[in-house]
Amino acid sequence: MTVPALNASRNLTPLVDTELLPSPTGEIRAAHRLYEHLIGMWATGVIEAAQDLGAFAALTVAPATASGLSELLGTDLRATRVLLDGLYAYDVVERSRGADGQAVYTLPAELHQVFAPDGLYSLAGKIGHDRNVAWHAWRNLADAVRSGARGEDGAQQLNQISESDYTSLVRGINFWAPPITSALADGLRELGWTDGEAATLLDVGCGTGIYSHLLLDEFPGLQARGLDAERIIPIATEQAARLGVADRFDPVVCDFWNDDWGTGVDLALFVNIFHLQTPESARELLLKSAKSLSEDGVIAIADHIVDEDGGVGSTQNRFFRLFAASMLATGGGDSFTVQDYDQWLADAGLRRVALIDTPMHRVLLARRA
Amino acid sequence: MTVPALNASRNLTPLVDTELLPSPTGEIRAAHRLYEHLIGMWATGVIEAAQDLGAFAALTVAPATASGLSELLGTDLRATRVLLDGLYAYDVVERSRGADGQAVYTLPAELHQVFAPDGLYSLAGKIGHDRNVAWHAWRNLADAVRSGARGEDGAQQLNQISESDYTSLVRGINFWAPPITSALADGLRELGWTDGEAATLLDVGCGTGIYSHLLLDEFPGLQARGLDAERIIPIATEQAARLGVADRFDPVVCDFWNDDWGTGVDLALFVNIFHLQTPESARELLLKSAKSLSEDGVIAIADHIVDEDGGVGSTQNRFFRLFAASMLATGGGDSFTVQDYDQWLADAGLRRVALIDTPMHRVLLARRA
Repeated sequence: MTVPALNASRNLTPLVDTELLPSPTGEIRAAHRLYEHLIGMWATGVIEAAQDLGAFAALTVAPATASGLSELLGTDLRATRVLLDGLYAYDVVERSRGADGQAVYTLPAELHQVFAPDGLYSLAGKIGHDRNVAWHAWRNLADAVRSGARGEDGAQQLNQISESDYTSLVRGINFWAPPITSALADGLRELGWTDGEAATLLDVGCGTGIYSHLLLDEFPGLQARGLDAERIIPIATEQAARLGVADRFDPVVCDFWNDDWGTGVDLALFVNIFHLQTPESARELLLKSAKSLSEDGVIAIADHIVDEDGGVGSTQNRFFRLFAASMLATGGGDSFTVQDYDQWLADAGLRRVALIDTPMHRVLLARRA
Repeated sequence: MTVPALNASRNLTPLVDTELLPSPTGEIRAAHRLYEHLIGMWATGVIEAAQDLGAFAALTVAPATASGLSELLGTDLRATRVLLDGLYAYDVVERSRGADGQAVYTLPAELHQVFAPDGLYSLAGKIGHDRNVAWHAWRNLADAVRSGARGEDGAQQLNQISESDYTSLVRGINFWAPPITSALADGLRELGWTDGEAATLLDVGCGTGIYSHLLLDEFPGLQARGLDAERIIPIATEQAARLGVADRFDPVVCDFWNDDWGTGVDLALFVNIFHLQTPESARELLLKSAKSLSEDGVIAIADHIVDEDGGVGSTQNRFFRLFAASMLATGGGDSFTVQDYDQWLADAGLRRVALIDTPMHRVLLARRA
């Protein structure tokens, strides 16, 4: 086998000193590599346990020693030290020596909001969702591969995430938005949009509305309408007020399969919507979009769009393939290829005009053919 | 916070394209980094599911397409494709295009034995153990931090791994041995051992005996005695025969707390034994070792020995701290520091003469003070 490329990342924490392995290839090296994959769950476990116990909330108030924290949280002293050292191993907390020689653990400032329940870019909702759903789903992925996680009619399923799970999760993935809206705004400018552009945005399945809210900030002439379920719309309404864009954001409770979307839309936006579809429902969504679009209108799809030509082992393609496995584990959906999208676009009289990489998504822009 | 160092590894698979993040620091970057940690369990899930379904066994026989494999395993076609693409994302399988355009998945030769139940360096036992124990333990790490995973008397526990769990696991960690015995043999040569050295090795808690067996291969004049529980010794006996060293390997069923270890031992070896101890039992083991050691005898401890001076963020220290969390999750033990070992050695009239890094352990050598 070709030796995998030397993968550089500031995010990952190597736990095997591969430099000390005797040979650059072979079975022993392969076993070490596989072992390192298999202990991937350790990161999930350590971070979620700290969140569960309130350790991050406490460390957001002030740095602490293991004994100080164990007293505060009512946890065992030695075990608290082990947990804190585990977080330190993953660079989630910093560690220094206090005057009395005891280790003092500090949560870096940029992580305070990441664990806060109400942080705009908090992962708290993602963690809560994973606690409820992901461990069991990933432990039992083999069952989903056997059954295909199909509906009772045997057909591929739309994603079956429950409304309450989604309500928890939706706040926990806001952090994806800033690099995506930044790339999307650049893409729109390349298509001729100006910052003062008087235009209408339709955000289909808007969730918290974060993509609309950040785009309203980029384009002061933009007016946005966000469509989502009754349970979700209050979250979007509240966040628009929090971010000072409520006057240009119109949140609408909408069954987007059966309700009308209106016409004259300059930008139809779908973020993380297509990966929840079947090929049939994806095609239907684009047919419906085409009908609502103005003559020069743009459709923007931010999703896990596999592009085989975009670098065989690209980080995006890898993530998208695993995201498909995640959806298989937790209830349906898929990471479709750019060829799939091109076909659905053509069927709706549309054509792709751009495909832009972002850290964990691709943004596809389309117009009338 | 200081930005974590750029971590290069051939083992890890970056899933976030950090180059495309707008700023090198800040909350959004931090959230992406934490998300990547939180999806660590995806690697565990994908690989274990493939093992559960028999996918690796099938791919060891021959490369396959998703449809060929799903037919063979009785699994859903689309889900099988998703699983195979997930393995491909982690570089566990290779993918090429067959003559008909279908993707063909190949398990690289050096991974065949890694997943085989009887492979000498197979991870099958580790995977089986994790299926039974690790998912539940890591999901519920917070409970262990609350309680400290203590015994009924409130004292820190010896590791509580059950004999049947250990029997499964012990065959699954043989792959650690080759770089350790290679480093240990070099260390012994530096202490004056010659390849023909007529010497006796006592392997305390020998498990499969792999460390003895590889050392017997390095030193043709060596005679080894392996001590372990009744359930384990037959595994060591069988493996000695398989590796052609049965004539110099004496497997002995032994309660190593209560039975005598004999005297005149030239090399007392403890691999992954000390991390299962409490500080009290660790001290006792070294007192007992000192009594059995010949005048020039060496004690070799291969374990997760934290060395704060050995590079603050060294890969070894990180792994050892997380291994301690793993033991907390699954039932007791700790990763002790080199200072702890030095104190126990001094109490037994011994002194450290070397500390050697290996990919996932350190090897401590000691002699009479």
